[in-house]
Order: sequence, then C-alpha cells, then structure tokens
Amino acid sequence: MRHAELISTGAELLSGRSLNRHAQTLARALAGTDLALIRDTTLPDDAAAIAGALREALTRADVVFISGGLGPTGDDVTRQAVAAVAQQPLVTDAAALAHIRALCQARGNACTPDRESQAQIVAGARALSNRVGAAPGEELVLDNRRVFLLPGPPREFLTLLTDHIVPWVRATRGAEPMPTQCLLMVSGRGESDISECLAADGLVAEGVEVAYCAAPGRVELRFTGLVAAAVEATAARAVAQLGGAVYARERLELAEVLGRELAARGLTLAVAESCTGGGLGARLTAVPGSSAYFLGGVVAYANGLKERLLGVPPEVLAAQGAVSAATAEAMARGVRDRCGADLSLAVTGLAGPDGGTAEKPVGLVFFAVADARSCHTASRQFSGDRETIQESAAQQALYLAWRRLQEYQEAKEST
Amino acid sequence: MRHAELISTGAELLSGRSLNRHAQTLARALAGTDLALIRDTTLPDDAAAIAGALREALTRADVVFISGGLGPTGDDVTRQAVAAVAQQPLVTDAAALAHIRALCQARGNACTPDRESQAQIVAGARALSNRVGAAPGEELVLDNRRVFLLPGPPREFLTLLTDHIVPWVRATRGAEPMPTQCLLMVSGRGESDISECLAADGLVAEGVEVAYCAAPGRVELRFTGLVAAAVEATAARAVAQLGGAVYARERLELAEVLGRELAARGLTLAVAESCTGGGLGARLTAVPGSSAYFLGGVVAYANGLKERLLGVPPEVLAAQGAVSAATAEAMARGVRDRCGADLSLAVTGLAGPDGGTAEKPVGLVFFAVADARSCHTASRQFSGDRETIQESAAQQALYLAWRRLQEYQEAKEST
Repeated sequence: MRHAELISTGAELLSGRSLNRHAQTLARALAGTDLALIRDTTLPDDAAAIAGALREALTRADVVFISGGLGPTGDDVTRQAVAAVAQQPLVTDAAALAHIRALCQARGNACTPDRESQAQIVAGARALSNRVGAAPGEELVLDNRRVFLLPGPPREFLTLLTDHIVPWVRATRGAEPMPTQCLLMVSGRGESDISECLAADGLVAEGVEVAYCAAPGRVELRFTGLVAAAVEATAARAVAQLGGAVYARERLELAEVLGRELAARGLTLAVAESCTGGGLGARLTAVPGSSAYFLGGVVAYANGLKERLLGVPPEVLAAQGAVSAATAEAMARGVRDRCGADLSLAVTGLAGPDGGTAEKPVGLVFFAVADARSCHTASRQFSGDRETIQESAAQQALYLAWRRLQEYQEAKEST
Repeated sequence: MRHAELISTGAELLSGRSLNRHAQTLARALAGTDLALIRDTTLPDDAAAIAGALREALTRADVVFISGGLGPTGDDVTRQAVAAVAQQPLVTDAAALAHIRALCQARGNACTPDRESQAQIVAGARALSNRVGAAPGEELVLDNRRVFLLPGPPREFLTLLTDHIVPWVRATRGAEPMPTQCLLMVSGRGESDISECLAADGLVAEGVEVAYCAAPGRVELRFTGLVAAAVEATAARAVAQLGGAVYARERLELAEVLGRELAARGLTLAVAESCTGGGLGARLTAVPGSSAYFLGGVVAYANGLKERLLGVPPEVLAAQGAVSAATAEAMARGVRDRCGADLSLAVTGLAGPDGGTAEKPVGLVFFAVADARSCHTASRQFSGDRETIQESAAQQALYLAWRRLQEYQEAKEST
C-alpha cells in the first residue's frame, strides 16, 4: 500500500465551529485503492505551520493532500505556504482565470482582484479544474512526492477527489494484490440487529472482515478480504439472511434507488408529511431528474392542515390522535387523491423533544403507503434527538415505499 | 493564550468508518478559556507514531491531549506509547482497578486480565476517574508540559473533559488578557461580497482579525482581537456596512431566528415549495417548538400541483412559466389562503442540472413573501450544483421572510 497524509487547514476546524469531515471523505474516496490515509494534521490558517507540516509529511508519505485555504480572502494562505516549501513563485493559470471570470459573469459579481487571485498557482504545479467552485486545485511534485492542494468547501473537496484524485490514484496503482470489497446498503434494521444476523455460524467466511457505518435509517455494511470468492459468498449469505433489508450493493441513497424503480415502472409518487416537515420531499427532490416521478405533496404540520389540505376526518384526529395508523392512512389516501399520484406515502409522529406521553412516546412514528387498491400502515419507535428521529422517519418512509415496489415485483413473479 | 494540541488515535478515524469529532468537542469545551487548540493530529493505533507525535507536540504546545487507545484490546497502545516517551514503567492504579472490578460486577462481566489492564497508568501520572466507562484518564507532566490521556469513546471523552479538564484549565489560567470575539451571522450576501464591504478604509480596526466560514446561503463572520473596544467597534461598523444582512450575533440558524420573531409576534407561517421540494419546511421544522408558528404547506413540484393545490392560474403558468415572479406570487397567495396563515413564503426555480435555458438558466430562483396586505417578490441567480442551489434557495427564502418581519418593525418604529 502507498501512504497518504492529509493536512486540513482552517481556523474554523480548531475553534469548534466546524467539524472536520475531510479525513473521512478522503478515506472513503480512497477505499478500494492502494493508497491508505495514515495521518491527518489539522492546522489553523497559518502559513508557517502549514509549510512545516508539509515538510514533515513529505518525509513520511507518498502522497500529501492539503485541504482549504485556497479562497479569495486574506486568511487563505495555503498556496503561499506551499510556494515557500517549493521555493517557487505564484503564477496565474490562464484557464483558471478564465473560469473565475466566467463564473463572476454568470453570478453577476464584479471580478475583483481578490477573486482573480484564486487563479494563482505554484509555478510548476498543474491546475485541477473545479466545476463546482472558483478556486482550482493544484498538483505538484515535491521531493519526489506527489502533493495535491484541494479547496476546503466540502462539496468542492469531494468533487475534485472524484474528478481528479481517484482517477490519478487508480492510474498510478502498483502491482500488489488488492483486497476485494463488497458493500451492502441496509435499511429497516439497526446495527446490532444486523450484527446478530451475521453472527450465524459460518456466515462470515474466514479472512473476511466486516465493517459497519451507521447513519439514521440506514447502515453501510462492508466485507473486505483478499480472497474474492470468500468475500462474495459472505455478501451473498448476508443478503439472504437480511431478507429484504438490503436495498443496494453500492453507496446509493434510498431516494435514488426508489426513484429508479418508480421511473422504471412509470409510476408517480406524492407525499404527506407531518413530523418530517418536508424532509421526505427534500430527500426525494435531492435526486436529479426526480420530476419524472415525484409530483409533490402536502406538509401538514398543524392538525388543522391535515383536515383542510388532506381531508383527514376530524373524528379520526379526535379519536385516534394525529399520531396514529388511522391518521397516517387518511393522510396517504388524501394526498394520493388530491395529487393524482399512483403511489403515496404518509408520515406522522413525534419528533420531540416535547409532546411525548407514556402511551405515545417521543420517537413513535406511523407510516402509510397507498396505491389504487390498498393502503399499508406501519409504525416504528425511533430513539435519539429530534434530528435523528426526523431523518430516521424519512428514511424508513422511503424504505417502505421501496419495499412496496419489491412486493409488486414478487407478486408478479409468483403468478 | 496558552496553546493546546490534540493527538487523536484510532484506525477507524482514518479508514473512513468514523468521523473524528474530538477536535470539535475539545474546542467547544475550551471556548471562553485561555487555552486554544492549535493542532489536531489524527493517527492510527501505532505506538511509535503516537510517541513521535507526542514528542513533537511537546515542543510546540503548553498542554497536549491524547484521545483513544486506552481500551482493553491489543490495538490499544496509547499508555505504552506515552510510557516510552516518559521513560517510565506502567503501574496499576488501585482506585482505577477497584472501579473496573465494580463495573464488571455491575455489568455481569468476567473481570479478565484484559479488562483489568485498563487500570494501568504511566508511573508518576495521576489517574482521572471515569464515571461513564472503565478506563481512567491520566494526567502527567512531561518536559514541563501538561499531558492528558483521555478515552476515545465520545461520551467518555466529553465526560472527562467536563469533570477534570475544564476545571483544571480554569484553575490554572494565567493573568494575560483574553481576546474578545464578535460573531456576525450574515445571509443574502456571499463571502467575497462581504469581504469587499469590509475592505472600506478604516472599517476593520488595527489588531482585529477577520475570519469567514461560508455555507450555502449564509456566512459566519468572526472578529477577534485583544482590545475589546476595537473588536466591538469593528463589528458595529460591519453591521452598518452590511445593512440588513446580519441576522444574528451568535451562532444560530436562520430558521431559528425567524421562528423566534414569528413566535414573538404571534404570527403563523405557511410555505409553498417547488425547487426546494420540502427543504424549506424541513429547515423550519428542524427547530424544536416550531409547531407554535409553522403550519405546513404544499410541495408543488409538478406544475399540475401548482394549479390543483395552490390555485396558480394556468394562464400564468402558460404565459410566464413556472419559474417566474408571477408564479411565485400566486403560489404564496394560494398557500396563505389555503392554510389560513398570517405570512407565507413561496420558492420556485431551476435547481438543475438540466432544464436551464439562455433566458432562464439553472440556478435562477424566484421568491415571494405574502401577508394580508401585500406580496413581495424577489429573484436570485445561484450557482453550484443541485444541492447547493436548493440549500441556497431555502436559506434565501428564510432570509426574505425574516427581512419582511424586520420591515414591519422598522415601519412601526418610523410611525
């Protein structure tokens, strides 16, 4: 394996303001390659400290990444620090300058000297185009080591990793055998539930490592090993054991997978949300092209709107309460009718922190999926803070709609 | 200010599995003290690397924290690494051993040698009690610097910070003056736009440092300096120069600030969303207690729903298009009527990546804010990818509603 180090720069990463996600983003981008991250050094925007850390990293690593400090303001000093180590001046990159000027024009901003200064790169470096921001990345060779400068904003950092870094790492990889990885995306089951499933005798083959990465409403499950057949057999046994909970075999959002299935079947979807407040629609519309199947829906946060906009009968609200299977069902049927959708989803629950009772505690959420013939309801008791409950509920709703489509398929296949 | 460094240890922090939150947790715990975090070095569980990083940190910092690697398994090597640097043996701490034995008994676990090994500390160190886990922390003096070893699990790390570290930092604080900080939360203007505003002659007083932290739709602006009057005068001039763009003077989300203003005035809000797809409602309902002022609304992603659910006249859609001021206005008026809200907000635009034209490019978004008497519209051209445009649009909508409430106040004050 080749070794990489990351130097993350930015006062906000050490003041408590921002969480440094760069190491995780970089490590995930490098997963499955022969380049392993062995150190992350997080520093303030201090040119001397950055230069010192770069010199040290060059003595240990094959590749050094530096993130942040490429912006237009005075506290952005990374290119100056690297130029000092390289003993090179800064020069203007013509393509980067043209890109910045075009961006300023498109955004209706004045193309000030500050903004144009982002086109400066270390002499001898190659500029790496940035299609989601102004500042280019840079690639240069120092002491026979490869050094990459990447912008700090998370989206730009990730985009440059995808566009430039990962292709370079793959193109330059050595001849040693690479471990095989199998990824399973799991929803509808928690980490310890999955862990119990995998504890079955002989399920995980010898030499295969299991890693979990849990997020609200879903778990990323990764099997790694040098023997490809053992890794793949383990993954196949896990899929069988986990039933319908595995929704993808690559890192995909549930909203994407559901969207593909809806598009493939030519079906449309509408949503009625209470405790998720719009988060379900937001997840669905985060997917480019979602207008092909997602119509929209109603956020009925106040109970009055559940009646006015969705036609939930007041007697259902009075007898069963807003957090009930009956209300979820009435919401799903109501939004389906009003939007003229093939399929509809409804969510109503208690996100907290207040409003829970012994009978209906915080975290209790009801779901309904309706189509022309039927309406299925379900409930789940989530734990965690408000944000976690809202995110878990939105994911679970997407999962239930996806499962419903799987059931169509299974019914079709069995007839 | 005294300087602290953190050494975070753990293979999972560099493999992509876990996010390293220790630096943020530590920095937030130290906020308002005279101890500033100047570096975080994240390393795998490698005794030589940890020892090397500790030796380097001792040359730079007054206090060194090491997190992780105090557990019972073979990959926990922190205490061995520190013992090597201190040139001291490991010894068993009697109180820590008693605590571990009691914990094993309470949990019904066998008290194995592995578990008991967590009571070992570097000779000469002081054990720091851990009321939420087995392994004690450690405090020792090396090269006249204070070194603290803290357990890696986030809850234990935070508990030891609260129980032992923060009290020690406060008790030992020096006599030097503390820097003053002023934070301004800015919306409706970009980072370089703000930077230009602040470039006005004499705006930023001498000795005052400016730092920016940008996210879609908002910028955190921080002024820091040793002379409180200079920092405060700079912040006051920046507020005046930035007009109504400063929405808070502490780290708050726009949705929170808007929610407080709505609650204080006893007003209710409804939203009509197209390109944000629910993201505006999701931001509003992320705030606990938002049901006091947020009623809900309509996600009219498909044009048909803009007519069916919001009453947007088909002739407006035909003549002006869905992405237009007229449609935004009709959406705002429609959702306000249908929800019975005091105030309403509408967003319609092109989030991309496809669907743009020369006349209406991707990133063009129209907004409307309606109340009983009037409806104000606005448009913005955002750049970036789909997610950035959606997030920027949601933030801008919240900003416009907040501005509208400020105008009520200003109108009231001027009469």
